[in-house]
Amino acid sequence: MSADLGDIIRVVDLVGVAVNGLLGGEIARRERLDPIGFAVLGILSALGGGMLRDTLLQRGTPVALTDPWYLVVALVAALVAFVVPFEGRTWNAIYPSLDGLALGTWAAVGTQKALSFGLGWLPALLLGTITAVGGGMIRDIVLARRPAFLGGNTLYATCAIIACGVAILLNGLVTAEVAVLVSAAIGAPLVVIAKARGWKLPGESA
Amino acid sequence: MSADLGDIIRVVDLVGVAVNGLLGGEIARRERLDPIGFAVLGILSALGGGMLRDTLLQRGTPVALTDPWYLVVALVAALVAFVVPFEGRTWNAIYPSLDGLALGTWAAVGTQKALSFGLGWLPALLLGTITAVGGGMIRDIVLARRPAFLGGNTLYATCAIIACGVAILLNGLVTAEVAVLVSAAIGAPLVVIAKARGWKLPGESA
Amino acid sequence: MSADLGDIIRVVDLVGVAVNGLLGGEIARRERLDPIGFAVLGILSALGGGMLRDTLLQRGTPVALTDPWYLVVALVAALVAFVVPFEGRTWNAIYPSLDGLALGTWAAVGTQKALSFGLGWLPALLLGTITAVGGGMIRDIVLARRPAFLGGNTLYATCAIIACGVAILLNGLVTAEVAVLVSAAIGAPLVVIAKARGWKLPGESA
Repeated sequence: MSADLGDIIRVVDLVGVAVNGLLGGEIARRERLDPIGFAVLGILSALGGGMLRDTLLQRGTPVALTDPWYLVVALVAALVAFVVPFEGRTWNAIYPSLDGLALGTWAAVGTQKALSFGLGWLPALLLGTITAVGGGMIRDIVLARRPAFLGGNTLYATCAIIACGVAILLNGLVTAEVAVLVSAAIGAPLVVIAKARGWKLPGESA
Repeated sequence: MSADLGDIIRVVDLVGVAVNGLLGGEIARRERLDPIGFAVLGILSALGGGMLRDTLLQRGTPVALTDPWYLVVALVAALVAFVVPFEGRTWNAIYPSLDGLALGTWAAVGTQKALSFGLGWLPALLLGTITAVGGGMIRDIVLARRPAFLGGNTLYATCAIIACGVAILLNGLVTAEVAVLVSAAIGAPLVVIAKARGWKLPGESA
Repeated sequence: MSADLGDIIRVVDLVGVAVNGLLGGEIARRERLDPIGFAVLGILSALGGGMLRDTLLQRGTPVALTDPWYLVVALVAALVAFVVPFEGRTWNAIYPSLDGLALGTWAAVGTQKALSFGLGWLPALLLGTITAVGGGMIRDIVLARRPAFLGGNTLYATCAIIACGVAILLNGLVTAEVAVLVSAAIGAPLVVIAKARGWKLPGESA
């Protein structure tokens, strides 16, 4: 493994943790929660997907609990959201890109992890998607809200599935690091465009 | 193990996956979800109980992720429900029997799996019941609905517990395959009769 | 390990299971559930936190499933709550102390278990807190209610975090048993006082 590329992916992965920790904190603010609520929603948003993936894989304690940086980054992000309201124009302009980058990276990393343990492509696709959207799903469930991906609002989960599909197609053709970067490079703009244009899947709720 | 009987149980198990995948898709239709919603509810309904059981057992990645057929059958069933509305008289006449067959089989298979790992009869009863009704429970939670078995509507969970009890009583007396078939043969008609007659447990909500 | 102290902790741990099983049953009564509902809420309240901790740790089947006493005590407590309504003055006077004792013990036991598997202090703090408040959280989620610790009502989760912090500070300085007893001795009165005085964390919902 190229140490440089591996480092890049680790950094992008933690950027995703930070962005989703901020998002969890933002939602805690909207729900008028106390600091404990900020911490809980930050952790669930930032680490819930990876923890659900690792718990289902059952190949050891989730990386979110064994790597000391994940919890620290998630909690610091929630703390930042507690202190600074992120609602301005700059944040709204930057957020979708960071969110898309996190979604693409997480989808690809989750897919590869499942494939590396010998799972088939369909379970790998499922676990990659869970990595990418599972944290938000768990956060919504804890808030007793119906998860956003059931509302038919955007192609969010579909972008994750596409990024996972790219990671599966590239598996074995290129190194794992390149596959992650390509998946993220495809998934991130999809999220931004889907959000900007309000894309929906065909369905009765569309 | 008799290969023939083992094959029968595997087929019945997958029939249960298909029936519950259809049911999940039906609920997605009623909730007016998009295709992603159909897939999510199909997977949760069809595989959620077994995945919860295997995650709690912690003896390896859930069979729903390692056996390639489970996810395929669940997704195909959800796809069928997306294309064809199952609401006619024939479906309403057949559904309870298939549902009962799945419940009885899943309860017995889950109970036996727990016993085979050395758990006591009470945890085995719990895990068998989780196998049978856990998927529907998780689906209802994701939909931000109170699970049906908390509503006091039918003896659904009770039928699962009875089927688990039969599997525990038969454990060691007959082969695992026969025990599953007997449990399913007792559990299935109970579900059908409880549904037809609107049986309830005694309680204030009755 | 001193057998006597270990026995004391085991007894306090099971007292916590009994108290929370009763509490789950009490909530089942308020929600007018049937006996299945009593059993489900009793099990979730009494054993959910430890099962979530052990499932995340992934070091074997949860102790709530391998130790025969846990399920029995939880179910007997739920049965008692089904038969006897606990709403009188005596119960209201005793309940906070027992609840605090359970919270402090569970927080310390969960923290120590995580540390003993080599996790860092921050993940150990998280898993200790999950042990103490996770069961109530899961119970509320199953009831499609927002968990109490997101409501900003009391310092309940904060008391658990403090008890976990004490367990971490004492780790290695004293025996595990003494650390648990000290943590519980600090956490229990905090719960009682926070409940009596209606303490809240600073925040917009305060």
